This record gives sequence, C-alpha cells and structure tokens, in this order.
Amino acid sequence: MSHQALLYSRSHNESYLQSLHEFLRIPSISTLPEAEPAIQAAARWLAGAMTDIGLQRVAAMPTAGYPVVYGEWLGAGPHAPTLLYYGHYDVQPVDPVDEWLSPPFEPTVRNQQLFCRGASDDKGQVYLVLAAIDSYLRTEGRLPVNLKVMIEGEEEISSPSLAAWVKEHQPMLACDAVLICDSGILAENMPLINHGTRGMAYMQVDVQGPATDLHSGGFGGAVDNPFNVLVRILAQLHDGETRRVLIPGFYDNVAPPDALEQRLLAQVPVSDQVIQALTGAPAVAGEAGYTAAERLTVRPTLDIHGMPGGFTGEGKKTVIPARASAKVSMRLVPDQDPAEIAALFERYVRSLAPSTVKVAVRTLGLARWSLVDLHHPAVQAAAQAYQAGFDVAPLFMRGGGTLPIVADFQDTLGVPVVMMGFGLPDDNAHAPNEKLSLNLFRRGIETVIHYLALLPEAMQAPR
Amino acid sequence: MSHQALLYSRSHNESYLQSLHEFLRIPSISTLPEAEPAIQAAARWLAGAMTDIGLQRVAAMPTAGYPVVYGEWLGAGPHAPTLLYYGHYDVQPVDPVDEWLSPPFEPTVRNQQLFCRGASDDKGQVYLVLAAIDSYLRTEGRLPVNLKVMIEGEEEISSPSLAAWVKEHQPMLACDAVLICDSGILAENMPLINHGTRGMAYMQVDVQGPATDLHSGGFGGAVDNPFNVLVRILAQLHDGETRRVLIPGFYDNVAPPDALEQRLLAQVPVSDQVIQALTGAPAVAGEAGYTAAERLTVRPTLDIHGMPGGFTGEGKKTVIPARASAKVSMRLVPDQDPAEIAALFERYVRSLAPSTVKVAVRTLGLARWSLVDLHHPAVQAAAQAYQAGFDVAPLFMRGGGTLPIVADFQDTLGVPVVMMGFGLPDDNAHAPNEKLSLNLFRRGIETVIHYLALLPEAMQAPR
Repeated sequence: MSHQALLYSRSHNESYLQSLHEFLRIPSISTLPEAEPAIQAAARWLAGAMTDIGLQRVAAMPTAGYPVVYGEWLGAGPHAPTLLYYGHYDVQPVDPVDEWLSPPFEPTVRNQQLFCRGASDDKGQVYLVLAAIDSYLRTEGRLPVNLKVMIEGEEEISSPSLAAWVKEHQPMLACDAVLICDSGILAENMPLINHGTRGMAYMQVDVQGPATDLHSGGFGGAVDNPFNVLVRILAQLHDGETRRVLIPGFYDNVAPPDALEQRLLAQVPVSDQVIQALTGAPAVAGEAGYTAAERLTVRPTLDIHGMPGGFTGEGKKTVIPARASAKVSMRLVPDQDPAEIAALFERYVRSLAPSTVKVAVRTLGLARWSLVDLHHPAVQAAAQAYQAGFDVAPLFMRGGGTLPIVADFQDTLGVPVVMMGFGLPDDNAHAPNEKLSLNLFRRGIETVIHYLALLPEAMQAPR
Repeated sequence: MSHQALLYSRSHNESYLQSLHEFLRIPSISTLPEAEPAIQAAARWLAGAMTDIGLQRVAAMPTAGYPVVYGEWLGAGPHAPTLLYYGHYDVQPVDPVDEWLSPPFEPTVRNQQLFCRGASDDKGQVYLVLAAIDSYLRTEGRLPVNLKVMIEGEEEISSPSLAAWVKEHQPMLACDAVLICDSGILAENMPLINHGTRGMAYMQVDVQGPATDLHSGGFGGAVDNPFNVLVRILAQLHDGETRRVLIPGFYDNVAPPDALEQRLLAQVPVSDQVIQALTGAPAVAGEAGYTAAERLTVRPTLDIHGMPGGFTGEGKKTVIPARASAKVSMRLVPDQDPAEIAALFERYVRSLAPSTVKVAVRTLGLARWSLVDLHHPAVQAAAQAYQAGFDVAPLFMRGGGTLPIVADFQDTLGVPVVMMGFGLPDDNAHAPNEKLSLNLFRRGIETVIHYLALLPEAMQAPR
C-alpha cells in the first residue's frame, strides 16, 4: 500500500528540497541567546509545514525554554500502533565561520551534497520524515499508523526543558514506539540502527594562581603558572600509552556488551583504517585492547575541547595568566552514572592540584546513556524498512553520541526508541561545512515510508 | 651644583605630572597594527616635549619600523662624559580590558598611584628623566654631562628595527655609558640596580590531528584529540616535583653567578613570602634548590602563556578540534644561546609527539641575555645616586625580564648599560591596572638629577 507514496516522493523530491532550503536558512542556533528570534521563526516555519502536510492539532507548544512544535494524525484507528516521532529544529553554532566554503546558512549543493548548518543535524532529517508523511497522505489519504510528531528547539543545548515537558504531556504523547532520525549510517549503502547512546559528563576545570595576570619577566620561575599546572593535571587524565582514562573508579561500572551485541558489533566495518580515512588524521589511536567500533560505542571516553585563558592571539605576549581553564567531557556507557563520574572526576582533579593554585571543578552538563531492546518488533520493523529502502540489511551499533531524551522517552513513556538515521560520518555535524547527501535525503524519505507501512504488521506479530 | 635643580623639580612636580598625563593618553600599542596613528602621535608628542626642555637636533628619526625619537645636549665639553639615555614610548595591549578599574588610557590617581597603561612601562619613567633634564637646564642653564636621548617605539614587539638602527647611527650614538630606566625597584624604600637581563626564546607549538573539527560523539575515543596529545607533551616540559625544565641540554650552558654576585643576591630580600604577598598566589613554587631571588634572575624558566584552539566560549561544545596550539616562552640566562635553546625545544617536543598528529614548532622570537660589569664607574655612580635620592644604598640584582637592546648596546657601542628603574613589582606592567607610584615619580626625577651630577667625577676617578 506504500507504492503510490514512494512514487509520489520521487516525483516531488525537488519541491521537498526547496522547502528544506527555506527551513535551513533560518539560523536557529540555540546556544546563542541573540538567536532567540531565529529559534522562534524556525518553530513558526515548522508549524506551518506540519499543517500543510495534513497534521492536526499543530502548535508551537510552550516549554520552560524554546517551544516544542507538536502535531498528530490519529486516524488509523484504535488497533493500529501509535508512533511518536521526535526531532529537533535547533542547530549548532557555526564557528569557526571562516572555514566554511559557502555561507553557513545558505543551502548550497556541491557534488550531490547539500551544504548548510543543520542539513544533517537535524533539520534535513526532520524534513525527510515530514516529506514521507506528506507523500503518504497525498496518495493514500491516510497513514497506516497513528502518528504523533514533536520537534524540539533545545537539543543542541542538551534539552534542558524537554524531560519535564514530556512528563507533563505524557497522556498526549502515549505511544507504542518512538522514532528518532538524528543519527548517521556508515556509508551511502550501509544503513545502521543505533540501539543505544552514550551518556555524558561535561566539566570545566578552572585553575587560579596569582591574583592578577603577571609579567613573566618579573615573576617567571618564582610562582606557579596556572597553565603549567593545568597541563600537568590534564596529562594525568589519560595513560599516554594505553589511552585509558586514569580517573580512579572510572571503569568500575562499565558493563560489557552481551554476546548478541558483540556478534553484531563485530560485523560493523568500522576499522582504524576507516576512521583514519574519514577523519584525515595522520594515524588513529584509542583505548588499548578494543576495536575502533568498540571505542566508538561501548567504551567511555574523555576529550578536552578547549583551554580558555591567557594569551591566544597572533604573536607573542609574555603573560603569566591569573587563570587557566579546560573544558573536558566524558562520553559514558552502561552502567556508568553521570553524576558519580562527575564526582570521581572532580575528586581526582583536586587530588592532582598542588597547593600553589586554587582549583574549581564545575559540572556544565550531565546526560544519561541509553540502551534499546534489539528484539522489540518496532526495532525489527526498522531493520525491514532499511532492507526495503536500501536493498541491504542494516547493521546494529550503539551510537557514540548523546541523546538524553532517549532514556527519558524509554523511562517516561515505557516504549522502545527506534533510531534510524540518514546522516553520514563525514557530514561535519557540529563542524564547518555540515552537509547532507542528496541521495540519502531521497532514500531516507522512502525508508520512512516503508517503516510506516511495515510497523503495523510487525507490532501485531506474536513476540 | 644640583641643589637648584632638585628644588625646581619639587616645585614643578604637578606640572610634570600633567605633561605625563598627556603622554599617557596616547594609546601607542605597538603590537596592534591599527594603532599605528597613535604610535606616530606619541612620537610627535615626545619630540615636542624634548624640544621644549631644551634638547637639540630633536627628530623622530625613521627606522625600518616605528621612529626613534632622538635629541641631544652636547654643551658639557669634550672632557665631560657622554651619557646615552634609552627608553620607549610604545606600550602593551590592554586586554583583558574589563579588568581595568579605570579606562586604560585615562590617567587616574588612586591612593597616590597613577593608573594608566604605560605609567610604569615605560612612559612614566621616560618622562621622569625628561623632567630631571628640564629641571637641570632651567636652573643651571647647562648639564654636567653631554647627553643623548633616544626613545624607541617598538620595545613591546621586541625592538625588531633597533639593533640595525643603532649600528647605522653608531657615530651619532657614541658615548661612555648608556642609561635605561625601564625596570623596577623592590619597594618604595628599596632601590635596585639591575646589572643584567634574561634572554628569551618564544615558541609556538601547533598540533594538527584530524583534517577538520570532529563531533566528539561521532569520533570520541577512536581518534587522538590534539588537546589530549598537547597536554601530554606540555606536561613533560617540567618535572612536576622539582619544577626543573626537562628539555635535554636545557641547563648545559647555564653559568652560575660569581661569588660577588652571589653575595649581593643573598642580600636581596626577595623571598617566597614576598613573592606570595606580591602575586596573591595561594602558595609559590619554583625550581628546587634555588631561592626565589635566584629563580627570578640567574635561573632560566619556561612558561605557557595560552593555548589557542577548540572551544573556549561559555558553556559546552563537544568538538574534537582539528588543531590545538600552545604559546610557550623560556627566559634564558648566561651562557644559554637562544637559537640553540629553540632548537632543543623543537627537537624535544617533536620527540614527544605520537604519530597520530602532526606537530609544528615555530620560533616567534629570540632575544639575548645581558650582564653588566658591576665595577664600572658608571654603575657605581648609579649606586651613589640612589643613595642620594633614597637615603639608602641600592641592592644589586639581574633583571628577570628581557631587554635585547642591552646586549646590543654593550656590543655595538662598547660601553656599559646602567639600569636604574623606578617601577615597583606590583605595578602590573603587561597586565590590567598598570600604575606608577607618585612618590617614585618624584624620587626618580631627583635620583636622575643626582646621577647627572655624580657621573663626571665617578668617570674621572682612577679605576
């Protein structure tokens, strides 16, 4: 019954792309307070698009922060399953802006790739789901499932208002499964189901030495330089040989994947060679004793993102800065507790600090990991949909990124979260020159159409 | 014969201060290309002031960079000694500007201190020398020495044009001694002669990992993060316990001070307690086995000034930056060769770099150390002048900072360089809230008057 919808989606691909361009042009950067009007404009645009495709009860619903745009189509009847689709309309900042080859908010096609901030993460993926719904409704006049759509505007700032909003609207959001399209597959012909996400503890370390900046000629050698101290502390977070995190207790609660998952993960063709080719690094490295696929999914990590303080301009300045800081995040896996890891981090960093400085450790964000039951029919239907859309069976791998809402949905709504993505590893999400493959935009629409068609039967099969 | 000059300087102190305010208001920041008009304005102002006090042949003389303002008074006759006075009219940048309690270029007196960028380093000290000359000429109609004055505009960018200019104008600059007032004393009642300066090698380390910035969710754990690598490299520059620099060969050519200098240095009341009080650090530390006074003067150091790259804004961004950098300088002592130390630094840093990154090491600047003969009569006359101006004998200590021009003067002109300073350790040179003690401005003028009066006799005494 999805055949007409598929044909319609193909013949209307160009007009769907044009609509996506409109959506992408709105610079809805949720981390920038000054972008608030753009965030609101993106929410209004989205509400209009959802109304246009035939969703009902469409509204930009208030939260404690930016609105959630909600809409639904509940005409499939009480025996059909109900699917809740979640995405986000906010995007990452664009700095360093001078590294973009075309303006960050001007959709530009080069080499069959659509370049724009948000093209892959997540506006492009949101719009392909809307296009799939549109194609279905235009051709069949109905959907095979009851559908609820909620698109938030705070994902890139860790969704501070969402968990409370979901709890508050639990009856409205009641469903049999949640679908998220905010992840990537491995290659154009290698679809992938993410059956989990990593959690996070994002920390800032502030080292205060002298009361004010000092001239290194006047005081160099006789007072500890906060940067000299800070690099010694940070260097002790990893073993330089094994790349293992040295925070005592860090690995204590890491649960190894079960046999099925290990078998599935071994099939994923993510090797050191692949990572090197994707990243352009001279050579790759990671925790000793684990494969690249394991390092990216079932193992926790620690990364330094930047070190504010002192003199960072061109040329020379001989300052001993009063303060030096570091932004450090850890990606966490089952069964690590983010708050406990943050406490272990703080205790360890404090233990490394000499008495010559004051060290403050702040927790900038905590997020839970998630795991999804691979056997659930809503997940199995996704595998069938990928097979239909890509002519190849999908791989299964936990995602390396963090989506706190997955654990929130599973806990609050009591249903599995199905993560089907249509991005690629080289999409530059969170980096300059973000892009989306035009081929995957088309295949994504078709795969979602297949999923909507396949879900009812899968959900009715005996488990 | 200096009595009238002293009285005149006291009664005209307020008008000298008003002129200094004019000089300080010109934002002559030599590190900022956009400040060029201000640099030129400062040179013009200075040439006017030097003409007003009665110097001759006054001109802002061109160099390969910013002009040297030159003037002279040569009426003391062929048997009188000739003194060349050197200072600079350029100043440091003012960032972080929000830490200034009053605008950086608005001279503001609080608690008998004159706050302004350049108040201590070096416009305030330049102007007190001009005031001493003025007081002498207004009262005596002549000076006891032949005097040449040269004030440059590139000191804060390491005087790139000066050595060549001095060589080119060697006959014009011929003299028996050079006087520099661009340093500090230990306390209001503790005058100090700096009989040396430290050299410098200023380096930048650039670590390139992946070809572009990556999302730590997508790649964290499977590729080396340039910051994670860089902190491990930098942490190995020092021994965390002894604070000794670990670069192989770094100390090989360090010559210990002789017995006289050790004895004089032991009299300098610079202790860990003093450094702690001056800097406000929770506790101080430095190279094991050396006193605070030794660490600041006769021992080489290594300081990290800043670490550009990655995300340094407020809040969180989960980027694995493609590049991470560090600005590192080393203060050098006799007989370390700056170019050789830069090469040792580069070789060591490269040896610490894993194959997962590309490391580039750049030399941003090299400068020679200097040592001045304590026994020279021009230095001994400075000691007498301090005794006369402060009623206490000065201490002797090499300066911790870098003044490449000292070695250049000694080599090119073949005369000793006398460093009498009137700044204080807490003057915040190179930091927000730079200041000059109004008491030391007055005493500085008087001490320079004494020096001009005492120099001829000292130079004629049998050596």
